[in-house]
Amino acid sequence: MITGKNYIGNVLTATGKISFKTINPQTNQENKVIFTEASNVEIEQAVTLATEAFATYRKISGVDKSAFLNEITNQIELLGDELLDIYCLESGLPKSRAISERARTVFQLHSFADLVKEGSWVEAVIDTANIERIPTPKVDLRKMLMPLGPVVVFGASNFPLAYSTAGGDTAAALAAGCPVLVKSHPMHAGTGELVAYAVIKAAEITGMPNGVFSNLNSSGVEVGKTLVKNAAVKAVGFTGSVNGGRSLYNLAANRAEPIPVFAEMGSINPVVLLPNAVNKKGEYWAKKYADSITLGAGQFCTNPGLILAVKSEDLTNFIQTLAEEIVKIEPVCMLHPNIIAAFENNKEKMKQQNGLKTVASYNKTTSKNYGRQIITTVDGAIFLENTNLHQEVFGPFSMVVQCESIAQLEAIILRLEGQLTGTILAENELDNYSEIVDALQNRVGRIIFNGVSTGVEVCNAMVHGGPYPASTDSRFTAVGVNSIKRWVRPVCFQNWPDTLLPNELKNENPLAISRLVNGKQTSDKVLR
Amino acid sequence: MITGKNYIGNVLTATGKISFKTINPQTNQENKVIFTEASNVEIEQAVTLATEAFATYRKISGVDKSAFLNEITNQIELLGDELLDIYCLESGLPKSRAISERARTVFQLHSFADLVKEGSWVEAVIDTANIERIPTPKVDLRKMLMPLGPVVVFGASNFPLAYSTAGGDTAAALAAGCPVLVKSHPMHAGTGELVAYAVIKAAEITGMPNGVFSNLNSSGVEVGKTLVKNAAVKAVGFTGSVNGGRSLYNLAANRAEPIPVFAEMGSINPVVLLPNAVNKKGEYWAKKYADSITLGAGQFCTNPGLILAVKSEDLTNFIQTLAEEIVKIEPVCMLHPNIIAAFENNKEKMKQQNGLKTVASYNKTTSKNYGRQIITTVDGAIFLENTNLHQEVFGPFSMVVQCESIAQLEAIILRLEGQLTGTILAENELDNYSEIVDALQNRVGRIIFNGVSTGVEVCNAMVHGGPYPASTDSRFTAVGVNSIKRWVRPVCFQNWPDTLLPNELKNENPLAISRLVNGKQTSDKVLR
Repeated sequence: MITGKNYIGNVLTATGKISFKTINPQTNQENKVIFTEASNVEIEQAVTLATEAFATYRKISGVDKSAFLNEITNQIELLGDELLDIYCLESGLPKSRAISERARTVFQLHSFADLVKEGSWVEAVIDTANIERIPTPKVDLRKMLMPLGPVVVFGASNFPLAYSTAGGDTAAALAAGCPVLVKSHPMHAGTGELVAYAVIKAAEITGMPNGVFSNLNSSGVEVGKTLVKNAAVKAVGFTGSVNGGRSLYNLAANRAEPIPVFAEMGSINPVVLLPNAVNKKGEYWAKKYADSITLGAGQFCTNPGLILAVKSEDLTNFIQTLAEEIVKIEPVCMLHPNIIAAFENNKEKMKQQNGLKTVASYNKTTSKNYGRQIITTVDGAIFLENTNLHQEVFGPFSMVVQCESIAQLEAIILRLEGQLTGTILAENELDNYSEIVDALQNRVGRIIFNGVSTGVEVCNAMVHGGPYPASTDSRFTAVGVNSIKRWVRPVCFQNWPDTLLPNELKNENPLAISRLVNGKQTSDKVLR
Repeated sequence: MITGKNYIGNVLTATGKISFKTINPQTNQENKVIFTEASNVEIEQAVTLATEAFATYRKISGVDKSAFLNEITNQIELLGDELLDIYCLESGLPKSRAISERARTVFQLHSFADLVKEGSWVEAVIDTANIERIPTPKVDLRKMLMPLGPVVVFGASNFPLAYSTAGGDTAAALAAGCPVLVKSHPMHAGTGELVAYAVIKAAEITGMPNGVFSNLNSSGVEVGKTLVKNAAVKAVGFTGSVNGGRSLYNLAANRAEPIPVFAEMGSINPVVLLPNAVNKKGEYWAKKYADSITLGAGQFCTNPGLILAVKSEDLTNFIQTLAEEIVKIEPVCMLHPNIIAAFENNKEKMKQQNGLKTVASYNKTTSKNYGRQIITTVDGAIFLENTNLHQEVFGPFSMVVQCESIAQLEAIILRLEGQLTGTILAENELDNYSEIVDALQNRVGRIIFNGVSTGVEVCNAMVHGGPYPASTDSRFTAVGVNSIKRWVRPVCFQNWPDTLLPNELKNENPLAISRLVNGKQTSDKVLR
């Protein structure tokens, strides 16, 4: 059923000249299907279709968008084992992960379906007229959030379902009323095509305009660059490396009309291990963190790559336990030969940094492409001076920084780049470290107490983002329904005739949504 | 009382080597005070103070910030006639305008004071834990908006009070918890210094940290560039030309850590005059628009610079009436010799465009620096082809585009750049022009029915912004209390001890704010 072609709107085509295959990292062999990269003509066609679709899709009701999103989940589930199988063949991840990631993808789509069906997310605000006001009458002003236009979504290598073709960015953009052009990830192009089929099928069943969704194969960076530079594209969602995200950000910022790029990029997710915690629960945390560091071969953006603590005998014991625990864990397959090659390369670069010591590394033979974990350590003073040590090593890698003092630990936090998460491990001592907490909180999107950063709950209160380079725009989250806010802007209607207003802003409040009317949040009608 | 020095935090200094004076455009003479541009050392000191102040100011309560903002209004009012006089001497604007703009400035500060005193603006969201959830327990997650860090505000030439030193951007940033560094506008440096004195005085009276506010004189672009490039600066607010805003945007986007720039820039504010309106109310609108085009010498960013209509005898009559009315209006002084020079220059450039005809211009002799209004007209086909005709002429200038058909009019709207406002003038005919309305709505931040775009209400429902180049970020408004959202980002606390949470997120809800708790908007406590 996988054709290797592109969905240019509803139509499968493959007129381009560049072809490629995906790789099964478990066998290190190419998978069978030949994919054809989208040609410039196909890209232009897809963007044109998206622009035309936007004219109608932007005005489609929340109920209809909800039906579309829910139908996508039906179609994804109907793909059954074919989807799970190709997911595993293209990612090296186990079937259990395929199932849980599919469940997460479905949950996300349902969440956005519920959000837009209810409708209050548009933040309707109404300030009625006051024609008797002196010296000048007050006009009637009403605003709501409206979609930006066609959005380009870049699939993530490490989430072939939940942050790729019909993942969080796509679900949020479609919910907002924006057509989506997916730049399919070359490592899981088959998974991408199957999901794209589900989206296209759902669009047809629920009567969405052709062009509301396209799926474009790419073997490298050219398709993405061409999409981001296209004047009709109005926003970009990306999950991946700092280099990749920054280059797209730069492209978008250099357009005649700059557009927002929401890139969720690198993070080393610092963990601060405070003295009482290392003293009383050092062994507990060592075991927990051995698991967290190796979870999914360390291929989560929230993987804890940095542990900060003050030197002590307790800390030496903690490092010893962490070293013992980490090598007990069986390595697993990484996503792609290129990813393990980068892991090995970055690991070597780190090992060559002055003062860095390896305290444990998995040295037994494994299958090819399995990520062998490593724990390193370095003195605080050296870490503070050498920002090469602050860089992410994507994979099962972590570094324990042994600080001379709490002051040095705080100085390190102040020098860190922005992070997705920061964690504090403490035992009845947090009151004494408010400066550490403040400094860490100011560098991260999410701050965690006595836990691990891996595991990102999809809920209203989640923030998945953070100061640069964790993301290119810390004001938005990439996880949870609030991520819809990335794809919209407020539009204000002044003295507009009630019958011609969007339903969200009409006096009668036909959608029965919650609105801010003359300063009061209410679902009531506006009295004339 | 005006010293010509910079406020580096609470201290007046002038160690720089570049000096300048302001000009009274009414007399075309220099005003007396010599201003000293901030030196690089002073800029660095101000940024360092702001960074230090942020460590405490970011955690100051809404009640205390409210007291600070309200005290600024007291101090501004205490400046009395000294402020009004220098305002007029530096802008050429009449005293009545000084008084109304001061009232607006005070109103804005009070609005933000009320907002942060009430406190719900932080959008607190709480999702409580569920330790019994299967397969994994659910953690406790709580998020709220928190300030970004030191903000640089560029004063606007055309609003020496309401969009300058303690204007909308500054009020919003201080309300958010961000220290502010004002790049004072060289055209009204004295007005700026007096207002800065009021802010500093208020900060001292209400116990705000030194560095929460600085005011930096500048004679050109260097001070602003140095500020935007400083790594400790986290966001920028700007009101001015497209060239100026875009160059700041580019500087910020090219930093190692890119930061958001909220630039409110150019707009020609298209007005669509539909057939029935021109037939039934042509004379009425001609008179209204003659007033709107010349209001304040056309120096409002919402000035209607473009009128679009389909050719007809009625339209010819409308243009005739507009031509007759516009020359009846007495020109007024423009803000600065440089501004009138640019107006004259841009007017000439427009007149040299093929096919543009002048239908009326004020030709009588006026005082120097008075802006003499002009109405031009051009055929739709020519306008469509020549994007030079789409550029803003800042001042009392407007262009009537005579279209061959509604289709051509729609094509023109689709080719326009982003705009702050768009206006439709219609008489029982709007139903027939939904494509025109949709196209216009998609290009603007605010769409107006049967009115004029000049006059920007400060209220919840206002959107002052729009697609590029109206602004660099259409997702935010520069007017109204929602503009506070530009200076904040969400931060999430996971499993955080209740006593150490910010008050906004504590179970007890000590601030009694409205929060989204487990999906329900409520001011209730969270039950444990």
